[in-house]
Amino acid sequence: MSSSPVDPADPVFRRHRGGKMAVTSTVPLTSREDLSLAYTPGVARVCEAIAADPRLADDYTWAGHTVAVVTDGSAVLGLGNIGPRAALPVMEGKAVLFKQFGGVDAVPVCLDTQDVDEIVAAVRALAPSFGGINLEDISAPRCFEIERRLDEALDIPVFHDDQHGTAIVVLAALRNAAALLTRKLGDLQVAVSGAGAAGVAVTKMLVAGGVNPEQVVVCDSQGVLGRHRDDLTGTKAELAELTNGDGRQGDMAAALRGADVLIGVSGGQIPEAAVAGMARGGIVFALANPTPEVHPAVAARHVAVVATGRSDHPNQINNVLAFPGVFRGALDARATRITDGMKVAAADAIAGVVAESLTPEAIVPSPLDPRVAPAVAEAVAEAARRDSVTR
Amino acid sequence: MSSSPVDPADPVFRRHRGGKMAVTSTVPLTSREDLSLAYTPGVARVCEAIAADPRLADDYTWAGHTVAVVTDGSAVLGLGNIGPRAALPVMEGKAVLFKQFGGVDAVPVCLDTQDVDEIVAAVRALAPSFGGINLEDISAPRCFEIERRLDEALDIPVFHDDQHGTAIVVLAALRNAAALLTRKLGDLQVAVSGAGAAGVAVTKMLVAGGVNPEQVVVCDSQGVLGRHRDDLTGTKAELAELTNGDGRQGDMAAALRGADVLIGVSGGQIPEAAVAGMARGGIVFALANPTPEVHPAVAARHVAVVATGRSDHPNQINNVLAFPGVFRGALDARATRITDGMKVAAADAIAGVVAESLTPEAIVPSPLDPRVAPAVAEAVAEAARRDSVTR
Repeated sequence: MSSSPVDPADPVFRRHRGGKMAVTSTVPLTSREDLSLAYTPGVARVCEAIAADPRLADDYTWAGHTVAVVTDGSAVLGLGNIGPRAALPVMEGKAVLFKQFGGVDAVPVCLDTQDVDEIVAAVRALAPSFGGINLEDISAPRCFEIERRLDEALDIPVFHDDQHGTAIVVLAALRNAAALLTRKLGDLQVAVSGAGAAGVAVTKMLVAGGVNPEQVVVCDSQGVLGRHRDDLTGTKAELAELTNGDGRQGDMAAALRGADVLIGVSGGQIPEAAVAGMARGGIVFALANPTPEVHPAVAARHVAVVATGRSDHPNQINNVLAFPGVFRGALDARATRITDGMKVAAADAIAGVVAESLTPEAIVPSPLDPRVAPAVAEAVAEAARRDSVTR
Repeated sequence: MSSSPVDPADPVFRRHRGGKMAVTSTVPLTSREDLSLAYTPGVARVCEAIAADPRLADDYTWAGHTVAVVTDGSAVLGLGNIGPRAALPVMEGKAVLFKQFGGVDAVPVCLDTQDVDEIVAAVRALAPSFGGINLEDISAPRCFEIERRLDEALDIPVFHDDQHGTAIVVLAALRNAAALLTRKLGDLQVAVSGAGAAGVAVTKMLVAGGVNPEQVVVCDSQGVLGRHRDDLTGTKAELAELTNGDGRQGDMAAALRGADVLIGVSGGQIPEAAVAGMARGGIVFALANPTPEVHPAVAARHVAVVATGRSDHPNQINNVLAFPGVFRGALDARATRITDGMKVAAADAIAGVVAESLTPEAIVPSPLDPRVAPAVAEAVAEAARRDSVTR
């Protein structure tokens, strides 16, 4: 029996046949005159102008509206380290979402290396063709160093979506959940399950958005992060310093005792007994896909607001609410980087779209809501100008 | 007075505003169902299939129909070393020509390095996202090493268009010019002016197409290449061995004495007196742009057939006759490289389009002739299968 990995009856394969995207010309190319304007000899005058003033590339090339979606295939969806070629369908999907929701042209760049130095060198090399770099599905802790080094080296925005896209939408959702429950972010006791790319970024984003870091407790697979842990380095060591003001120790149940908020970005399961230890009227975001850390129906027995990463439950925390508008705004403002202020502005804009119509089942907009990306773009562009990170 | 390098009245700048290309989605993205097929969770099944069988990327990603147009901006048109950012308008132009004439999706990749090792590393890294690599406007002699190393390292076609695109169209034109004059390629005495990227590739291509290497004389700026020259290394030393069987020495006039064919790919001027030394009823291809090595009207006093690189004279030798069909055919055949056989097949196909209607003013098709790319694609794909370089 043949064992082709393709199921021809599966509509997913039919939909992906030939890939999901194409390049189109935005200028006519049917006459000799067209060719002499768009190509030689006319194009030489545009080249000379950009050579004289490189900022003209923003206006006279597609780099002004185009980002690279860069991965090394090391942490793809829930699939793990499947490599660059197998990651390409995800990057194409991301690229077409960029276009559909943000009007941003995006090109998948799947790198055939998982060496940090080589990734940084390759992205630095190809950067002149693009107006921004969206890093995607790169495993922790390498993703932190790669983003930091590229952000320092390049004068275009660099944004690791698994970190910051997730963090922005979580902050937006928490703002609205807190508003619905008439709680202040600064008063909430928050437990974060997971200290990978998303957990680190969510924690930092919540703090940037007004959560008291002393009242955040982050757990990795070994338990609560804190100064009692002598096995921590790098980003986790930073989090251990920043958070857990009352020096909790132990497992997820210890982190959740009396907590108002659980944010799961780990993939690990959390027993109901631990959730039951949370304060009354709390909030659970169980974001692991496809299996949330705690089933939303189980969580709902113990808390007032529940969100997941799934499209078949209410309150889907989906990065597509963030990344198209974030890059649209950054490109519109000719931003050179993406600041915390821009991320917080994006979260506020997402939250604002449904702020007047909050219910426990609608703390975030639908991923298909066409109001979101324009609102995010405007807020991000304004924040970029406020933070003086524009060309 | 302001000195912006942009002339707002110049239609070239209006045509280039916002760049010349865009990305489009080829799948619908308007419902939750669409998102779950094109993106998560459905896309994971496509990723898993490709992880199990990497060849499926040809069918289920856009890599099967997409090439990277890679430059370092070191030898752009007649402008020279203007760098990656200023080169981008040319690469976009190339990309949209790929789409218009070959139905090939193409993405400009302008690299921020001119170091050979770094260029090779960057292109190797980004290769999994693409079905082919078109190298463009990279200066000699670095272009030879870059192409050779990438061709060895990658299992997708690598093609330096300034070399091979030009060489293919020159061979096509020479085939038809010789047929018109009832001459055999193997009998012709040929002088090539220029030993850069194009001169080297033209010489090799003519030999692959049937010209006797002993009857080719190549000149660089120091004069005729031959065994008498002790200043030659690398590719030029190879040419000195391969060509100039009767040991000519001296300048362009020495190379042209009694020659049947002049191919100018140098940019330098050739005096009429030297052209006057050619055999009667000869052929001149003066391809420098915008100023041919010898004015076509001057050449016409001494030879029977004249071609240039310009669109405002008859017989335009334009790479667009070659590269869209070459890559279309290579992609269609899932070729792993581009062989001499495929290049000769491309030249024969281009020549064949006008073979039945030859006149001294029409030895090559118009760059806009829609018959060319499909004919080239079919011939190239067939040659790839014949040469057993398909996946």
